[in-house]
Amino acid sequence: MLSRRSNHRNPQLNANGELIHLLSIDGLPAAVIQHILDTASTFLSVNDREVKKVPLLRGKSVFNLFFENSTRTRTTFEIAAKRLSADVLNLDIAKSSASKGERLLDTIASLSAMHADMFIVRHSESGAPYLIAQHCAPHVHVVNAGDGWHAHPTQGLLDMYTIRHYKRDFTQLTVAIVGDLLHSRVARSDIHALTTLGTPEVRAVGPKTLVPDSLRELGVRVCHDMAEGVKNADVIIMLRLQNERMSGGLLPSAGEFFMSFGLTPEKLALAKSDAIVMHPGPINRGVEIDSAVADGHQSVILPQVTFGIAVRMAVMSIIAGNEP
Amino acid sequence: MLSRRSNHRNPQLNANGELIHLLSIDGLPAAVIQHILDTASTFLSVNDREVKKVPLLRGKSVFNLFFENSTRTRTTFEIAAKRLSADVLNLDIAKSSASKGERLLDTIASLSAMHADMFIVRHSESGAPYLIAQHCAPHVHVVNAGDGWHAHPTQGLLDMYTIRHYKRDFTQLTVAIVGDLLHSRVARSDIHALTTLGTPEVRAVGPKTLVPDSLRELGVRVCHDMAEGVKNADVIIMLRLQNERMSGGLLPSAGEFFMSFGLTPEKLALAKSDAIVMHPGPINRGVEIDSAVADGHQSVILPQVTFGIAVRMAVMSIIAGNEP
Amino acid sequence: MLSRRSNHRNPQLNANGELIHLLSIDGLPAAVIQHILDTASTFLSVNDREVKKVPLLRGKSVFNLFFENSTRTRTTFEIAAKRLSADVLNLDIAKSSASKGERLLDTIASLSAMHADMFIVRHSESGAPYLIAQHCAPHVHVVNAGDGWHAHPTQGLLDMYTIRHYKRDFTQLTVAIVGDLLHSRVARSDIHALTTLGTPEVRAVGPKTLVPDSLRELGVRVCHDMAEGVKNADVIIMLRLQNERMSGGLLPSAGEFFMSFGLTPEKLALAKSDAIVMHPGPINRGVEIDSAVADGHQSVILPQVTFGIAVRMAVMSIIAGNEP
Repeated sequence: MLSRRSNHRNPQLNANGELIHLLSIDGLPAAVIQHILDTASTFLSVNDREVKKVPLLRGKSVFNLFFENSTRTRTTFEIAAKRLSADVLNLDIAKSSASKGERLLDTIASLSAMHADMFIVRHSESGAPYLIAQHCAPHVHVVNAGDGWHAHPTQGLLDMYTIRHYKRDFTQLTVAIVGDLLHSRVARSDIHALTTLGTPEVRAVGPKTLVPDSLRELGVRVCHDMAEGVKNADVIIMLRLQNERMSGGLLPSAGEFFMSFGLTPEKLALAKSDAIVMHPGPINRGVEIDSAVADGHQSVILPQVTFGIAVRMAVMSIIAGNEP
Repeated sequence: MLSRRSNHRNPQLNANGELIHLLSIDGLPAAVIQHILDTASTFLSVNDREVKKVPLLRGKSVFNLFFENSTRTRTTFEIAAKRLSADVLNLDIAKSSASKGERLLDTIASLSAMHADMFIVRHSESGAPYLIAQHCAPHVHVVNAGDGWHAHPTQGLLDMYTIRHYKRDFTQLTVAIVGDLLHSRVARSDIHALTTLGTPEVRAVGPKTLVPDSLRELGVRVCHDMAEGVKNADVIIMLRLQNERMSGGLLPSAGEFFMSFGLTPEKLALAKSDAIVMHPGPINRGVEIDSAVADGHQSVILPQVTFGIAVRMAVMSIIAGNEP
Repeated sequence: MLSRRSNHRNPQLNANGELIHLLSIDGLPAAVIQHILDTASTFLSVNDREVKKVPLLRGKSVFNLFFENSTRTRTTFEIAAKRLSADVLNLDIAKSSASKGERLLDTIASLSAMHADMFIVRHSESGAPYLIAQHCAPHVHVVNAGDGWHAHPTQGLLDMYTIRHYKRDFTQLTVAIVGDLLHSRVARSDIHALTTLGTPEVRAVGPKTLVPDSLRELGVRVCHDMAEGVKNADVIIMLRLQNERMSGGLLPSAGEFFMSFGLTPEKLALAKSDAIVMHPGPINRGVEIDSAVADGHQSVILPQVTFGIAVRMAVMSIIAGNEP
């Protein structure tokens, strides 16, 4: 069902090069990424002031289509949409007729006919948001909120916002991404964004089972040793370890992973003294990260969450054509 | 619990003949139906313009009480209510104390005491919305969103809107309703609406197990042969085949049903050349309808969905006494 | 996890004695309780007028964090927040990562970073809302919507509103609380409120298994005989009997409980002739209360629900610092 891939080089941009969907960071020009980050910064003040709403999406209907459950991610989009004054509809797809064999594209066609303006799509199959973007009505905009192992572009963008906020110039940075890169849509989105923005050294750090040499094709340096991986890094992005990977035999145990690749104060000391520590959340304390690091002064994990709302507001207002 | 039926002839209308609840199309005067359709047409422009909201129900609280799950139908009411600027509360009744033995009428009394303005009720037992309408506070309005096999009046109304939009005059039409009429609340609502609006020929088409001769009492012509049923029809309404009917022995198989009563291009060619094809959705491709027909130029299945939002906005604003 | 209890005497009040969280009635000064009730009375007219919304919480984000499911209570808070024009986010915590082992305080920190303004917390463990209030960001306000057997302060406050509405002066009253006081957070909140407001006689009425003598420490008179308990009472508060108590051996059967402590017209006749009957709902007809009493003219069970919305609006606007 999800095999009909587009022949378009970039279904995210219209003929004028304007962003109309956000499906992947792969293929986004640096100028588009920077424009999203610039727009997000204008929304950060919105979140701080007394009345948080702006009317940019007033009267628009935003549908959260979460074929894969994620309360946390759905909530960030719901907040962002409501702060733009949109009407938000949460569709519990697992319970709906979609789960009873209704074809994905029939569901989408039907919701489009209700004059939806935007679909926020989370799906366990890579490519589902592309399929939806290719087949929905022209007035509908699609945001990929995570598809399979493929991409999680808003997480990638909020990570870029965070790095730019603390480090300013991507062209001078060494960034280490640590953990299960093989199964991580976050890692893939981060790598595309970092290379597009000119980061000279991006390291993929983890055991061979989770960081295959084939990742080099994405332009990263593969490190199977943590000390080598974090040495002199400006930014360390820890990934969340999925428990199901360990039962699958790819990893011996959470304890062993922590010994080798968990970020402790000792390992963090190998990075630059002003290095920042990032994590997409929710964190597994004592598995991929030590509490002393997660709660320490170099951690920017909570600012990432705050920036994430602003970045999602930026993406939604840009693709809807109603920028601030 | 649901046995206390009203002695009122028409609990949907107040002493002035104004619509205060929408429970069934059975018993609605033609003028009331036409007024709903006229009002709906004023809302269609709302759905097309940039800001979709109108303030007709601002400050009103609309409760979606879905005792039977239907994400699709609930969503259409939620969108309609939000476009009228109402506050919408979705009650997951299956999880609430109502499911733990709380009496239906106690639940309703309690929600009414919260100053609810409108209940949208879906229930597996026929008559439940009547019971609620009879016992709720005078300021509360009830819309039946489907009760048992009994009625689904907003679907009936949106079907009438669709037919009027494409065919204008009901008094010249032949309408074929095809499939499992026995268990279909949609069919029952359509038949009442069509006969009230003066449609000279309404055909009930399907196998004897699903289209019993007793349907003739509703004023329809019963056809157990598809070719006879669709011949020279202006409108063909295909019903959704419920899989549970087939396991229940009422039907041999989906494949056999499709052979006899599935709408293919060949069978559609027997109808008038400008006949329209309708379906309440979601469609079962290859069971009751061929993809070539569902996606063909005579299909008005997606316009039905669009009209459905406008019809629901019309019903809600009329019964609340706040018409455009 | 929930063991880090505060050393503060009253984490609900700021240095100026203003209410910033509502965690328990225990420890609230009488003036604060009376101020909440006074504020609630100004909102009752809001619920009656045509447009029910006031803009006091416009742009604020209220998160319903229900770790323990309660559709009824969640709905009352959702209505109250929407009538204050807040954006409401319902988090289905049972489905979220919180249930997959994410630490409660990490969840809270992450949601706070999304610029939440208020958490409405229901939790099966006593003390959870305190823990959250102690660790959330300074701009976030917490309302306890029921924690374990400990407290349900908004229910206690709406009960006080109801009593004040019908009886005016607490210092002249005899109030009987009947049923399973041992496991009732409602009873605990009511007792604290009644004694703080100067009620001279509060009776705890029920069998020894459910009304232990240790309740005397709270300043109530323990009665194991119903006739003694309701005699000359001005107010009778019936508690909901949880079915699980009966299977646990604390009670022989629902029928036997009804015989001894169920409120019948005969038992009610022992109270003052103008006594009012209250119940937090949902009622178990024929278990703790006879239908003739529940639906009788002395019952104020439905007004309690109405007052409950106004009281929750009052609490939310006061702790947010945006009073009417």
